[in-house]
Amino acid sequence: MTPDHRTPLPTSARTVFFVSDGTGITAETFGHAVLTQFEMKFRQVRLPFIDTLDKAHDAKRKINEAATDGQRPIVFSTLVKTDLSHVIRQANGMHMDLIQTFVSPLEQELGVKSTHTVGRSHNIVDSEEYKNRIEAINFSLAHDDGQSHKNLSEADVILVGVSRSGKTPTSLYLAMQYGIKAANYPLIPDDFERGKLPSSLPPFRSKIFGLSISPERLSEIRHERRAGSRYASIENCRYEVNEAELMMKREGIRWLSSTTKSIEEIATTILQEIKPDRRDY
Amino acid sequence: MTPDHRTPLPTSARTVFFVSDGTGITAETFGHAVLTQFEMKFRQVRLPFIDTLDKAHDAKRKINEAATDGQRPIVFSTLVKTDLSHVIRQANGMHMDLIQTFVSPLEQELGVKSTHTVGRSHNIVDSEEYKNRIEAINFSLAHDDGQSHKNLSEADVILVGVSRSGKTPTSLYLAMQYGIKAANYPLIPDDFERGKLPSSLPPFRSKIFGLSISPERLSEIRHERRAGSRYASIENCRYEVNEAELMMKREGIRWLSSTTKSIEEIATTILQEIKPDRRDY
Repeated sequence: MTPDHRTPLPTSARTVFFVSDGTGITAETFGHAVLTQFEMKFRQVRLPFIDTLDKAHDAKRKINEAATDGQRPIVFSTLVKTDLSHVIRQANGMHMDLIQTFVSPLEQELGVKSTHTVGRSHNIVDSEEYKNRIEAINFSLAHDDGQSHKNLSEADVILVGVSRSGKTPTSLYLAMQYGIKAANYPLIPDDFERGKLPSSLPPFRSKIFGLSISPERLSEIRHERRAGSRYASIENCRYEVNEAELMMKREGIRWLSSTTKSIEEIATTILQEIKPDRRDY
Repeated sequence: MTPDHRTPLPTSARTVFFVSDGTGITAETFGHAVLTQFEMKFRQVRLPFIDTLDKAHDAKRKINEAATDGQRPIVFSTLVKTDLSHVIRQANGMHMDLIQTFVSPLEQELGVKSTHTVGRSHNIVDSEEYKNRIEAINFSLAHDDGQSHKNLSEADVILVGVSRSGKTPTSLYLAMQYGIKAANYPLIPDDFERGKLPSSLPPFRSKIFGLSISPERLSEIRHERRAGSRYASIENCRYEVNEAELMMKREGIRWLSSTTKSIEEIATTILQEIKPDRRDY
């Protein structure tokens, strides 16, 4: 069990299991989205790699043990093999069997039988898509924070913005999740004085996307890093953000404000705007 | 539509929509896990941020237009608001409504009404969990490839292994997905000659986890980076892998082979083994 150490759970918290023959990431991502609809705390237990009958029986036992005070656990599962799924469903729980619920109707709709293999991770390491993701992570790391001007023509996206506007995590997320090669360049006072984008960027204008942020939020983030510095002061943040936004407008660069957006929301918006040709699904 | 440019789709490919009031990442992750069960190609279209009735009607129109030759599109949706979900379900498609399918039964089970707010991303940027993720990404970047020995006591996990065994992508994934602060250190010929772990590591043995890899795979990966080098030669890869595994055994470090494992599988295994106290769910 992995309760959050910062917010002790009431002893009566309902237990939720994420059971999978793979990593359990799909079950967990989906389970979280559903559970967020309820203003309750849950104890969460992930049971990954349940890929044999022995492990399934072991998992069933754990679920049964977690039932207390007449409260049965909630079980989100993505077990592709029906025999494993059958064992788990015998446990005393409320079952949300993601595969069985949707795969059978889909078989009917598509007029073909499912292969009942194990999730996406099956042979994933040898796939083109996976290799592209790893290559994109390496590219984004090498092109973080304007470190390298080499091979910018290979970039799918080039992010620009003031320091701490969210460029680095967004670049890494685009690479990790979508295999997008994302370079990023800081816009710094030198650029504002020259009134021009960093010199290697103009040839790639169509791939450039800007991140802005409210000066107040920026100042807060920068203070966490360098408390009391001029760099973090609200006056300096106002100056930099204003100059960066003027520059992006002048250069015709699309941009968004990252102030209230998560990495995932920023990345999704960028993909909608830039529509890179090379996008792995 | 975002067909993969490397494998042209047959014109008859069925269209799949991922419709969400947020980023669509949950719908897409889940949809992929289900669709992988079918040996068919699909045209995939993501429709994120569908959070008003106007946008819902627009999405409905797109779905209707994609129906061809009597083949209706498949629609995976995570729309929390019932009025939006109602509009989408009027479209001519096979609907996999993830929220409605599971939220109503859960309301019954839990004896409370759902809040019908929008997914996890609701106010996510201000949450402790989100801040921890960003902090962890910065930590993992600063401690990539043995770059910094500072604040190792803050690390949740320290990965070791020969160059190109998968440490960097795994560290970044742990940080991005779970808010785990993951440092990583390469094991290099100098360490093998001294017969000792890099000197800053022994105090943190309980957090150390090793990645190994088959020499053949390693040589392949290194050749892509530095073709024809001694570094990439199979003899050198055999030597390094053998020495690294001997050292990990000698030092009592748990390790796994990354040869056929995806980043997600490696990260899940590490979390099971290390069980860091600070784990964000």
